[in-house]
Amino acid sequence: MASVAVLGAAGYAGAVAAALLHRPPVFELEHVTARSDAGARLDQVHPRSRVPLVLEAPTTELDVDAAVVAYPHGASAPVVAELLERGIRVVDLSADFRLRDLATYERWYGEHPVPELIGEAVYGLPERYREQIRDARLVATPGCYPTAAILALAPLAGRLADVVIDAKSGVSGAGREPTHTKHFVTVDETVTPYKVGAHRHSPEIAQEVGVPVTFTPHLVPLAQGELVSSYVTPARAVGDAELADLYREAYEDERWVELTLGPPGVLEVRDTNYCRISVHVDGRTGRVLVFSAIDNLWKGAASQAIQNLNLMFERDESEGLE
Amino acid sequence: MASVAVLGAAGYAGAVAAALLHRPPVFELEHVTARSDAGARLDQVHPRSRVPLVLEAPTTELDVDAAVVAYPHGASAPVVAELLERGIRVVDLSADFRLRDLATYERWYGEHPVPELIGEAVYGLPERYREQIRDARLVATPGCYPTAAILALAPLAGRLADVVIDAKSGVSGAGREPTHTKHFVTVDETVTPYKVGAHRHSPEIAQEVGVPVTFTPHLVPLAQGELVSSYVTPARAVGDAELADLYREAYEDERWVELTLGPPGVLEVRDTNYCRISVHVDGRTGRVLVFSAIDNLWKGAASQAIQNLNLMFERDESEGLE
Amino acid sequence: MASVAVLGAAGYAGAVAAALLHRPPVFELEHVTARSDAGARLDQVHPRSRVPLVLEAPTTELDVDAAVVAYPHGASAPVVAELLERGIRVVDLSADFRLRDLATYERWYGEHPVPELIGEAVYGLPERYREQIRDARLVATPGCYPTAAILALAPLAGRLADVVIDAKSGVSGAGREPTHTKHFVTVDETVTPYKVGAHRHSPEIAQEVGVPVTFTPHLVPLAQGELVSSYVTPARAVGDAELADLYREAYEDERWVELTLGPPGVLEVRDTNYCRISVHVDGRTGRVLVFSAIDNLWKGAASQAIQNLNLMFERDESEGLE
Amino acid sequence: MASVAVLGAAGYAGAVAAALLHRPPVFELEHVTARSDAGARLDQVHPRSRVPLVLEAPTTELDVDAAVVAYPHGASAPVVAELLERGIRVVDLSADFRLRDLATYERWYGEHPVPELIGEAVYGLPERYREQIRDARLVATPGCYPTAAILALAPLAGRLADVVIDAKSGVSGAGREPTHTKHFVTVDETVTPYKVGAHRHSPEIAQEVGVPVTFTPHLVPLAQGELVSSYVTPARAVGDAELADLYREAYEDERWVELTLGPPGVLEVRDTNYCRISVHVDGRTGRVLVFSAIDNLWKGAASQAIQNLNLMFERDESEGLE
Repeated sequence: MASVAVLGAAGYAGAVAAALLHRPPVFELEHVTARSDAGARLDQVHPRSRVPLVLEAPTTELDVDAAVVAYPHGASAPVVAELLERGIRVVDLSADFRLRDLATYERWYGEHPVPELIGEAVYGLPERYREQIRDARLVATPGCYPTAAILALAPLAGRLADVVIDAKSGVSGAGREPTHTKHFVTVDETVTPYKVGAHRHSPEIAQEVGVPVTFTPHLVPLAQGELVSSYVTPARAVGDAELADLYREAYEDERWVELTLGPPGVLEVRDTNYCRISVHVDGRTGRVLVFSAIDNLWKGAASQAIQNLNLMFERDESEGLE
Repeated sequence: MASVAVLGAAGYAGAVAAALLHRPPVFELEHVTARSDAGARLDQVHPRSRVPLVLEAPTTELDVDAAVVAYPHGASAPVVAELLERGIRVVDLSADFRLRDLATYERWYGEHPVPELIGEAVYGLPERYREQIRDARLVATPGCYPTAAILALAPLAGRLADVVIDAKSGVSGAGREPTHTKHFVTVDETVTPYKVGAHRHSPEIAQEVGVPVTFTPHLVPLAQGELVSSYVTPARAVGDAELADLYREAYEDERWVELTLGPPGVLEVRDTNYCRISVHVDGRTGRVLVFSAIDNLWKGAASQAIQNLNLMFERDESEGLE
Repeated sequence: MASVAVLGAAGYAGAVAAALLHRPPVFELEHVTARSDAGARLDQVHPRSRVPLVLEAPTTELDVDAAVVAYPHGASAPVVAELLERGIRVVDLSADFRLRDLATYERWYGEHPVPELIGEAVYGLPERYREQIRDARLVATPGCYPTAAILALAPLAGRLADVVIDAKSGVSGAGREPTHTKHFVTVDETVTPYKVGAHRHSPEIAQEVGVPVTFTPHLVPLAQGELVSSYVTPARAVGDAELADLYREAYEDERWVELTLGPPGVLEVRDTNYCRISVHVDGRTGRVLVFSAIDNLWKGAASQAIQNLNLMFERDESEGLE
Repeated sequence: MASVAVLGAAGYAGAVAAALLHRPPVFELEHVTARSDAGARLDQVHPRSRVPLVLEAPTTELDVDAAVVAYPHGASAPVVAELLERGIRVVDLSADFRLRDLATYERWYGEHPVPELIGEAVYGLPERYREQIRDARLVATPGCYPTAAILALAPLAGRLADVVIDAKSGVSGAGREPTHTKHFVTVDETVTPYKVGAHRHSPEIAQEVGVPVTFTPHLVPLAQGELVSSYVTPARAVGDAELADLYREAYEDERWVELTLGPPGVLEVRDTNYCRISVHVDGRTGRVLVFSAIDNLWKGAASQAIQNLNLMFERDESEGLE
């Protein structure tokens, strides 16, 4: 059984990753680390995780087969480099290795701490890069918005003339650090667009779907889950039947992507690794509407990381995710 | 002082209209009616209304100067006809007289009960039809989605090549009738698109903005308020400065439309007649993004009705709405 | 492997019971029934259940070893009688067989449909009646409030002079039937006491703790979960250390009752069979404060039913509940 | 017209006070101050306040007739002393001058910064101390819990043998400072007791109702509003009719206290100065149950401050509060 560590386990996604890895009999979770809560037990910080391990101070001096790194963007890359050097395979949850083009990375995030590793990283969306993930040393798990958007748009690859993406996310997507923006009284009873025209996930989506996208996230008053509404102008007209075929072919063998007749609600996939997708043609305009729902902490982060780990260690991709 | 009645005052929008009309010294609220709760006092059914009037059984035999009709679509038209016949001026909150084209109406709603009145009705958006409203016998107050969408798009009239509208609405927008869809447990912690490709508000928006629109509403877990995100492909490129000018010119004299620098949240306009709008250019695609927030029960229904009544009875448009 | 049916599987508790029983390899879930949604698949009515069985019309002509009956009070008893007659062992989720005293039952619920079965029913709180449950034909699973209250108070049995219970429950506790009371707009942003001085759960609590209680439930705006705050005047003064001993002794061998140092929040036990309890002495008044949190649909209904079934069929009590 | 300042106007209660004072024609709001947001306009920090004044850095060098001080406990007293020295009458929202007994103050809060002012302060609950407030230089507005609890219990003064108070409060009661406790994800979908056995509001309640109380607050997932459930053992038995008389007599002339037949919900008094109270006898135990609902930021703080200001400046007590 492969031994693993979760670095940054006090954050929301890190805690879910630790909880999933702690379930028998998939992996052996040997270490959890955290900056702010080191010394506390993880199940005191996150009772629902039910992981009784003590959070250790951040370190890379670990003797494990693999690590999930749940660090903020920028902070992750140097740690990932150290882990790889020690022979530890890494699933990174940050954005540090998701963009394949260094110039694009630098435009959005500034200088890259370890640019030489970019070429090696595999984009950790199993539905697209399953084979490459199996052999990877470094897997860059997609962000929550790209996961839902790319799964929604992938079956239309090559047919996209123009894409508008309007995303609605629960508050855990904004992280655990207390801020005015995440204060209950700020979020409750409102909907707010944020990072209009400038969200860092848009180049990541564009990289995978092949065209620029107009992407706008909105904060909605719920804890967990995310709905991505994609409005596609197809390069040429596409009918209902053809569309249904495209999506069925793309996903009929995928365990974690479900096509639904009516539009999915995010609650349907809460606490699961599922992505639910519905696709529709707007008869009057010919536009294609795709709605995709995921749990931002699961398929949008932690459970997708486990899916990747399963692939990397030759286990059944779905083990521990039911 | 003009005397008024509110028909259908037990619904959410009707109750707000009654509460606003009950405030001194604007109008004299003489009657409130309701089907299901007749006999109860309005402030028992809706404590926050603080209107101590008894809800009467539905009737049009009223001796008042004006009536606000808050009936469901289809049920409103015959009642409106009766009221007009008695010489009562009407502000209708239903969709029955909003569409100017009978064929369009019939495609979306079926046969019209009183088609001969369609030509006479004035579309009750004061920011666009102020003069016509003053003299109208029958004012058809826009729905909540069209109000927010049209105010967002009107300054771009004639420049719109293509419009995608993604709306997020609180649950009161779906009415007071208990259904599975509005059960707390159904709505809580989720976001769900509804009436995909077929919402009856889209022809109303198209009528006013002059181009077909792709309109998709989403239900979000909050009681009151609505955000409309409009993604516009302009007929020709438009810059930030030009855009800002267009919107400033359109709204600098409008008391109830506020332009904001950052995108507005719906809580900012809760329980008010304000519409807050921000406009942005997406530098990479040239697309124009417009976000507009209103309270669906106020500017999207009841307070806009009062704004119309004020105009019809030669009062200051804003009286009783502060 | 024992075969089971869930009757009334379209309700919230019934659906959770079906979901838990559908998990391999505990029981073989062979039938699910429902009145209103018969013909639909359970995972269409309750997507999160992920149970692909078709809901059958209500029937007791079933060939199974056991049945979970999730019917409303009064409707359950006759069905339970029929099932027992067919040799099917029953875990009942209604109140029909919880009260051991017929007169008390009749005071609160009216005439009992099958009074001759009352004597046979075992009160389905495993932490108190484990041995009797093993051999029972009919187990009456406690209501959600009694479960949390009795577990909170049981260690003080014989020492209670007076008890005030103030309970706060999520909306799923009120059932799935759409009503004004459960409309999102009614529940959102408020707290409301209900059934003041007259909740049917108080005699059930009194029966088990041996003294009358003042019990008041409150509806709070969350979907699932329940906190019971018990304020106890002890028959004689009790100190912190003695109190801690009493509770530790009572629960140290109980897998599903957890003592916490600080007061528990209901989210900590969401979607689990756990009851979390903290106990405190108010130094100035000598009063004992006990806070207990459960998930009303799990330990307060469905997962406790599975715990009972496990006992009845000689399985490990916790199987399928992790 | 009296001129006023609000010190600490960026907090939730301070902002509501400023908004109410900014309404014509009650007072002339001349200054608003804040530590963290100095330099910003108040309506940018709190859009719903609609107060366009710029927040000034904290100062007491003000030329106004009165000041509302919305500072944290301990920070308020020295500022209050300075203001009084300048001849400015003060309504203080902190706890610094609410307790009349210095020893009690010091047991709960530590050393008092300005003990010599304690004797002069009037407890700012108009329903009890109306006459004293009129002439006061310094009014200590009660906390939100004491306001609701004291109004609930006052009619029973002299008849109370024992009182348990279980309070449920929205999150704004905990202040605007971002913390883990107030993070949306922490509060959403849960109920949590806090400060068990040690809340600083209990001596304040005890001071006013004349007996020690067991007081436990709970945090519930809503922004604004508070329900206080009081469970009273009366010194001698009291019947329904007698009870109804006591409360009617106490409150029939009070504009802002409303007796309701059924228990009140907190939403009914949202954004108002009302306190709604219902009172019940539990037939089996003789216990008296009193439920009181207020808006913690209004009657529990800001609007009650205005009510006090009105009294101090010989205005109608309710002016500007409708």
